[in-house]
Amino acid sequence: MEKKRIRDFGIVPGRVKTGKRNTITDVPGVLVGHCTVNMEENHTGVTVIVPGPDNAFAHHYTAAAYVHNGFGKSAGLVQLEELGTLETPIALTNTLNVGKVWDALVGIVIEQCQNDGLEPMSINPVVGECNDCRINQIQKRAVGEKKVRQAFAVAAEEFEEGDVGAGTGTICYGMKGGIGSASRVICIGEKEYTIGVLVQSNFGATEDFILNGEAVGPKILEWKQEKNDMAASEEDKGSIMSILATDLPLTSRQLKRILKRTGVGIARTGGYTGHGSGEVMIGFTTANRIPSGCEEELLHLSAIPEHVINRAFLAAAEAEQEAILNSMTAAKQTRGRKGELYYSLAEYLNDRDPE
Amino acid sequence: MEKKRIRDFGIVPGRVKTGKRNTITDVPGVLVGHCTVNMEENHTGVTVIVPGPDNAFAHHYTAAAYVHNGFGKSAGLVQLEELGTLETPIALTNTLNVGKVWDALVGIVIEQCQNDGLEPMSINPVVGECNDCRINQIQKRAVGEKKVRQAFAVAAEEFEEGDVGAGTGTICYGMKGGIGSASRVICIGEKEYTIGVLVQSNFGATEDFILNGEAVGPKILEWKQEKNDMAASEEDKGSIMSILATDLPLTSRQLKRILKRTGVGIARTGGYTGHGSGEVMIGFTTANRIPSGCEEELLHLSAIPEHVINRAFLAAAEAEQEAILNSMTAAKQTRGRKGELYYSLAEYLNDRDPE
Amino acid sequence: MEKKRIRDFGIVPGRVKTGKRNTITDVPGVLVGHCTVNMEENHTGVTVIVPGPDNAFAHHYTAAAYVHNGFGKSAGLVQLEELGTLETPIALTNTLNVGKVWDALVGIVIEQCQNDGLEPMSINPVVGECNDCRINQIQKRAVGEKKVRQAFAVAAEEFEEGDVGAGTGTICYGMKGGIGSASRVICIGEKEYTIGVLVQSNFGATEDFILNGEAVGPKILEWKQEKNDMAASEEDKGSIMSILATDLPLTSRQLKRILKRTGVGIARTGGYTGHGSGEVMIGFTTANRIPSGCEEELLHLSAIPEHVINRAFLAAAEAEQEAILNSMTAAKQTRGRKGELYYSLAEYLNDRDPE
Amino acid sequence: MEKKRIRDFGIVPGRVKTGKRNTITDVPGVLVGHCTVNMEENHTGVTVIVPGPDNAFAHHYTAAAYVHNGFGKSAGLVQLEELGTLETPIALTNTLNVGKVWDALVGIVIEQCQNDGLEPMSINPVVGECNDCRINQIQKRAVGEKKVRQAFAVAAEEFEEGDVGAGTGTICYGMKGGIGSASRVICIGEKEYTIGVLVQSNFGATEDFILNGEAVGPKILEWKQEKNDMAASEEDKGSIMSILATDLPLTSRQLKRILKRTGVGIARTGGYTGHGSGEVMIGFTTANRIPSGCEEELLHLSAIPEHVINRAFLAAAEAEQEAILNSMTAAKQTRGRKGELYYSLAEYLNDRDPE
Repeated sequence: MEKKRIRDFGIVPGRVKTGKRNTITDVPGVLVGHCTVNMEENHTGVTVIVPGPDNAFAHHYTAAAYVHNGFGKSAGLVQLEELGTLETPIALTNTLNVGKVWDALVGIVIEQCQNDGLEPMSINPVVGECNDCRINQIQKRAVGEKKVRQAFAVAAEEFEEGDVGAGTGTICYGMKGGIGSASRVICIGEKEYTIGVLVQSNFGATEDFILNGEAVGPKILEWKQEKNDMAASEEDKGSIMSILATDLPLTSRQLKRILKRTGVGIARTGGYTGHGSGEVMIGFTTANRIPSGCEEELLHLSAIPEHVINRAFLAAAEAEQEAILNSMTAAKQTRGRKGELYYSLAEYLNDRDPE
Repeated sequence: MEKKRIRDFGIVPGRVKTGKRNTITDVPGVLVGHCTVNMEENHTGVTVIVPGPDNAFAHHYTAAAYVHNGFGKSAGLVQLEELGTLETPIALTNTLNVGKVWDALVGIVIEQCQNDGLEPMSINPVVGECNDCRINQIQKRAVGEKKVRQAFAVAAEEFEEGDVGAGTGTICYGMKGGIGSASRVICIGEKEYTIGVLVQSNFGATEDFILNGEAVGPKILEWKQEKNDMAASEEDKGSIMSILATDLPLTSRQLKRILKRTGVGIARTGGYTGHGSGEVMIGFTTANRIPSGCEEELLHLSAIPEHVINRAFLAAAEAEQEAILNSMTAAKQTRGRKGELYYSLAEYLNDRDPE
Repeated sequence: MEKKRIRDFGIVPGRVKTGKRNTITDVPGVLVGHCTVNMEENHTGVTVIVPGPDNAFAHHYTAAAYVHNGFGKSAGLVQLEELGTLETPIALTNTLNVGKVWDALVGIVIEQCQNDGLEPMSINPVVGECNDCRINQIQKRAVGEKKVRQAFAVAAEEFEEGDVGAGTGTICYGMKGGIGSASRVICIGEKEYTIGVLVQSNFGATEDFILNGEAVGPKILEWKQEKNDMAASEEDKGSIMSILATDLPLTSRQLKRILKRTGVGIARTGGYTGHGSGEVMIGFTTANRIPSGCEEELLHLSAIPEHVINRAFLAAAEAEQEAILNSMTAAKQTRGRKGELYYSLAEYLNDRDPE
Repeated sequence: MEKKRIRDFGIVPGRVKTGKRNTITDVPGVLVGHCTVNMEENHTGVTVIVPGPDNAFAHHYTAAAYVHNGFGKSAGLVQLEELGTLETPIALTNTLNVGKVWDALVGIVIEQCQNDGLEPMSINPVVGECNDCRINQIQKRAVGEKKVRQAFAVAAEEFEEGDVGAGTGTICYGMKGGIGSASRVICIGEKEYTIGVLVQSNFGATEDFILNGEAVGPKILEWKQEKNDMAASEEDKGSIMSILATDLPLTSRQLKRILKRTGVGIARTGGYTGHGSGEVMIGFTTANRIPSGCEEELLHLSAIPEHVINRAFLAAAEAEQEAILNSMTAAKQTRGRKGELYYSLAEYLNDRDPE
């Protein structure tokens, strides 16, 4: 079965125009790569978001983070917030694998820098995570350096969604979650800019699920139970990691304001940010690169006037909402460690509206 | 016409049980009072939330604030956050009236303290605001000390919603907004606790409005235009002030986490926190009062275990959503300063479903 | 007796070069004005810092705030932080006068805007405060609109320090405190930039006082007691407001980092930020003005490269330290409301090193 | 040569009474262990702070963090701040080793939990770091799981200071830095409580160094240059990690306020928190343990009344100052990777005041 996206079911979240692929890689330069682990007890992986073709450490990206619910282990946010910059690619993985993936990123950045004639002594890897322990034996920390390198090796503009990479073992609204993405295009003056979002979805209770304005959660609950007595029924726990990329000229302050609005996209799918649902948003812009050198020259930055920022707010909220839905339609049915069944949203939609 | 609440139309937001009155004053001790100004160009007012029957300055309330979008002039948040306490009643008014209302609160607290044999030298009044300039000549700052005293004089468990007090001139989703309230009751162990919310609603664009899961915004837009060519059509601007009261035993850290979830209630009505939509949440609990004296004795506080906080999160989100809807059904049709017409949500609902 | 500054006693804090006047008005365009209230029980006032010659509301200043200890009532910080801009002059006064001064600023800005053909509906006045209740009958709120207008009327590059304006009733390290200022000049590339600080000093216990590295506190304590049995002996309470102005091209994130380092200047005088010592820092740069209009054009900002920011850090710390010392030498001996005596630091220095 | 502490030179920072050992382990239950790496190019290590004798994961500690300058890679702060709890021991190491040490902590906690019959699926290790690249080949990440286990194996109430564990390769004020500790005892009511600090010192320029109020920096600069032409002369870079332990009953909000005052201790040694000097403070109290189970019962917490918190502020500032000085006297002379010499503060003090 080919992977489906939410628009394949005739469902169109929001009103803002999408980018060409309707993914985060519509932002020029951005690449995404996965490495999926599926062996014995381990069903997990790593997803990398590469901000651009050159060395991020040599020319930092203007960046921001917003922690809506800090019940999570994301690494690298402290410096990213202090300096307003991103100096490495971003990696997503499972909760207990943050250390190993962090260490792998350090090794990879050192190598890349040495190729470029740089000797980095201080590196701030950014690693996000969700807890996939309902499907994956998380204590084993199955994602090592080799897997991270594999994810970089395949990073591209085209990438899979659903139960791949860091989304292999995640659960969303009691169904199978995973990696999802979407994008929006907005105009400032005469010029078009893209805002792309990639999520690792792992939150929500089935009964709360809202599908593009329709409170289908209770119906899905019924459908699942009719279908199979092993159908998973979950409380809201887990988390969501949201990565936002854009080519809009922004300061890190503006970027943080935009990141906050991805929370609206989450709420539009029915989430209320449960206690255990760590919600962390990380964003960067490919405009306003910051050289890491030691010149005395002033930086020249551009930024949108604040009064047009609503366009970016709405775009971010919509892209977040659609990315979550895409993560759920693209993921396929998966069994949990206790034998329980996590359906794909695509299955429900197929059953509901048979062609 | 009697004021209507959203449940009078058969619409029931959420699934958690409500308190007796389904307002913030279901939290024992909490009172609300309004003073409405309607004269010439001025249509504005002040609403006071009194946390309890005794002097808040003598026994502080455990409190927290959460600024989701800081485009606003609320006063008193800096100290409230540093010390985690509320030491005065809370007043809401229009944007440019914050100074006068702040000063009035100081005078009132000094008086009350002198009656109680206290000599306060430092007082931290908490004042929230929304910008009602589309209906009210805001530059005149029509709310003076006398009005604030009148609001206190009538503070009670029963209070009006809609276009009264600080809600006299506000606009919500391009219709008339105002003061709205709702409450929820949750159980921890065997014991019931109440979470109440009061909002001053002044945000949103009509086309974004979601009525309990149904995206009615575009329909209302059409209905308004058919009805009258002076029907207001607004961008998302303005703000929302949310006051949360509870008798749950909480630390200020826990209270702040709960306040953040009121944002979900806003999103459920369709809002995406526009640039100009200052969203400020202020909360207090009537448990864990803090004496302001100088004893050496340790304080003994109680707090819910963190793993049950989801009950409060959901309750806060639902109460916020319902309070916003109540503010819109209770408010009656009002003309703006340019002659444009702000309908009541009740009118739309009556037209849609004539009895 | 002419007002003295700390350098008049041969004491030179720090090593960075000062500006021409060694005050905040060394930053081109910045003006300072006082209105002092001395009548019956009231010894207080207001000090205004005008960021530039034109209307701040029409062209905002890039700004930031840093609350080190939020036990205080400063108004306007929420919006200033959210938007990173200052849109009015800054006023300092006594704690309970914040409301009246806030309201006066609103009136003054409306007037100025109307002269410029603008109709402001939302204004964010920034008001700081210290608690001068040991010298001033603070409950009377003696600073009204007229006084604020007087302060603006006399705003100039030359201004008095010590017991004037908002410093009339403040106490620092158990001696008379008040308004103090200092500046530093740093080089980025070939170009010189100025960092100026103005403080309203009202904190510290005598025994903790450090004079340019020398722990003179205990000696001063002895000297005071020998001199007069009414010599005040105080615990660390009160507060300090610090205003920083610069013409360095900065983002608001950078400005906030610089503001944090003024705390080092405070620590260098011996303070440890006591519980009651609200420490609030507000800063703005005259570079990177932001038009408040509605154009679609991108803003073009400049900013220093982060790796040279240490120069600004050290400059800010030194200017803060010297501004505090200047506030203490310029202030003259004053009696408290209970008859106790607050000496000037100048008196001690004169006694110690008679010419 | 035996390791010396600053009081061995007759220098007594501050006025508050110390604990028995004048180290962080004066707080009952707290243990410290080091593992030092000295091989070929690597001179680094790991230091663990164990908060108590039992499993922290089963009964969390009330905790807080304060990031004064976030130019650093500390891990675990996001969740620690959100929930106000610490659930693992704290480890300190070099900058690029954070990932490996984080991963080792996960393994150790899983083991300990399995011994206690718990199956942790989500663990939040707290790891701090300083950059020791001037002495250590940091890119090699020489601290692996085995080293971390060795540090735990030797954790005890008695522990070494100076160039050991995570302090092996750090530099402070252009001299050899390292691990230092100190404690203070304060009274609330009739009862005594202890505040202990442990630092990993790696910041400051020699010329800025202040020794208990005396600006000796310039003299030390001269002394170093006379002594040896390889004497290191450094800019302010690096970082400082501060760990604070106490048995005071506190909420996490109060603890954070106390942590902020350790910055005063840093400033008292002459630091101004340079751009590169990441300053991160992490604190926990052994009072108010939080069970991680799922009971419905309310937590009963105690807390000091806010008006006595100044005692803890001063204690924290003094302990921080003395811990830094101890880190410098205990560390012995070390050569950097370029052959430059980092003296011990003890050498200077011995030369200055020969017995």
